[in-house]
Amino acid sequence: MSIVENNIQEKRVDLARALHEVRVFAPATVANMICGFDILGFAVDKPGDEVYMERVAEPGVRIRSIKGDDGRLPLDADRNTVSACVKMLLSDLGLADQLGVEIELTKHMPIGSGLGSSSASTVAGLFAINALLGEPLSREELMPYCVEGERLACGHGHADNVAPALLGGITLIKGYSPLDIQKLPVPEELVAGIVFPQVDVPTRDARQLIKEKVALKDAVVQWGNIAGLIAGLYEKDYDLIGRSMQDVLIEPTRAILIPEFYEMKRIAMEAGALAFGISGSGPSVVAISRGAEAAQQAVDRIQAHLTAHGIDSLQFVSAVNGDGPRVLAKS
Amino acid sequence: MSIVENNIQEKRVDLARALHEVRVFAPATVANMICGFDILGFAVDKPGDEVYMERVAEPGVRIRSIKGDDGRLPLDADRNTVSACVKMLLSDLGLADQLGVEIELTKHMPIGSGLGSSSASTVAGLFAINALLGEPLSREELMPYCVEGERLACGHGHADNVAPALLGGITLIKGYSPLDIQKLPVPEELVAGIVFPQVDVPTRDARQLIKEKVALKDAVVQWGNIAGLIAGLYEKDYDLIGRSMQDVLIEPTRAILIPEFYEMKRIAMEAGALAFGISGSGPSVVAISRGAEAAQQAVDRIQAHLTAHGIDSLQFVSAVNGDGPRVLAKS
Repeated sequence: MSIVENNIQEKRVDLARALHEVRVFAPATVANMICGFDILGFAVDKPGDEVYMERVAEPGVRIRSIKGDDGRLPLDADRNTVSACVKMLLSDLGLADQLGVEIELTKHMPIGSGLGSSSASTVAGLFAINALLGEPLSREELMPYCVEGERLACGHGHADNVAPALLGGITLIKGYSPLDIQKLPVPEELVAGIVFPQVDVPTRDARQLIKEKVALKDAVVQWGNIAGLIAGLYEKDYDLIGRSMQDVLIEPTRAILIPEFYEMKRIAMEAGALAFGISGSGPSVVAISRGAEAAQQAVDRIQAHLTAHGIDSLQFVSAVNGDGPRVLAKS
Repeated sequence: MSIVENNIQEKRVDLARALHEVRVFAPATVANMICGFDILGFAVDKPGDEVYMERVAEPGVRIRSIKGDDGRLPLDADRNTVSACVKMLLSDLGLADQLGVEIELTKHMPIGSGLGSSSASTVAGLFAINALLGEPLSREELMPYCVEGERLACGHGHADNVAPALLGGITLIKGYSPLDIQKLPVPEELVAGIVFPQVDVPTRDARQLIKEKVALKDAVVQWGNIAGLIAGLYEKDYDLIGRSMQDVLIEPTRAILIPEFYEMKRIAMEAGALAFGISGSGPSVVAISRGAEAAQQAVDRIQAHLTAHGIDSLQFVSAVNGDGPRVLAKS
């Protein structure tokens, strides 16, 4: 299946010059950036997933191992999103019958956490195969394959996780037909304090809760906030960023699925966060802060509160990752 | 009635140092900026309204004359928005019983045109009284009086016309409680080609047509466009600005009230406009263009089309007005 409208089929790859092996990291992402449902997202430095890819003699794409998924992801190369996307790309490049690769996937973040777990793996896989082949595609040309990976993984071809995971930084999905992505400036003191309460909220369920119709007056508030956030990012105006990152439309519904949500919000704001909300479809939550200290304060206090209520959790404190995926090793 | 939460009552005005007379221009405005319903707007260099204000011995605020309104606006100082707002401000300053002023209002744009006619007059009046008194208030402090003027004139305290009319440039109303206004950068080649088809579309009717509920998926498209427009303004990316200024929510309803709307749109885009849409609640339409030549082309062709269909119209071609109101003469 080809999913691209451009001239990828015409690209020539010299397999004699391809690498033997490559190890790639791709970052977790915070989709929506609280107020920008389905259009905004940013990448973080940690957590993230790793793909090790090795060239082998026998043609085809195989999954050799998956670590960190508690056995939840399929090893079957046609059903696993990472390998399925790699196969798609090799097919479009006319290499499906010539090249053999085996993949080891290491997940450093929980599945179903709202941190773009499937996106990070997909992006790592596609970035790895592209690196192995000597980068025949630009990042922008890899994007449609990443979006298709999201469709396979989640049933929706959304780009608000894969765009920041692939391009790094803060991304705006202005539109889907055609895919229209804009990178936004990253104020350097912006830090995300992420807490993942270890409860299960599948993306599909979280989406199904959302109402199909919204009040225009609420939508006006929401797009005023989105506009304020974009302006705040360009102006490096942290106050404006903070008071703009308010979600009046989606959060009231999704918060129901997240234990202690409003208490966590109160704690984060008291700890000095600029804003607090749900990462993607949850249950991870994010305290957007100015500086690492404030973010650390917020997540420490939130975790203590969850612990006191018998809820296990993980925390990650990270600046915005401006680079996206990176090659960790190659030969 | 006092409408301000700040300390305007504590301001001291020395009437001995006030001016004798002042003449002020305030600009027309294009609310919504096509995609940003109720949050965006910009000021133009022309048309605009003029207020001449003269100090007189007898305390109170009176309308001496109104030109250019075809007799549609009330001369009664309590019912006329301009004088009512001036009275409100004088009352808050504790000057209602001490100061007398008479107002001559000259309207250079049609009422009910969708160009912020009432806003321009209100802003001109408030800017004039403030200038006459030696500027005791900042522009930001004048804003709540302007918003109240809109409430008196239109039944809604919207700020998407008064904000750009008072502050100049392109303004974002991020929120109303409290009033949160952000000035946005103005790419210097941006030019508005405005055509006012001389048909009557009262603002109240145009608002009542709009549905109270909208599809979330359409709202997502709309706020993607709004975010793209804000980014485009900061990046001076005219292509991004153009493809972002698309209104999928309000235009389909309001366009019904505007004769030849889609034909005008086709003509404007063929003439090289970046975008085309309704100014405020219409019936004026605006071709946002890069450079004056493209804007002039668009409005000339649109006017020719309207003329051929027996519809009279006015045209205005203007860069974005970065200054807002200005004092034309004083003594």
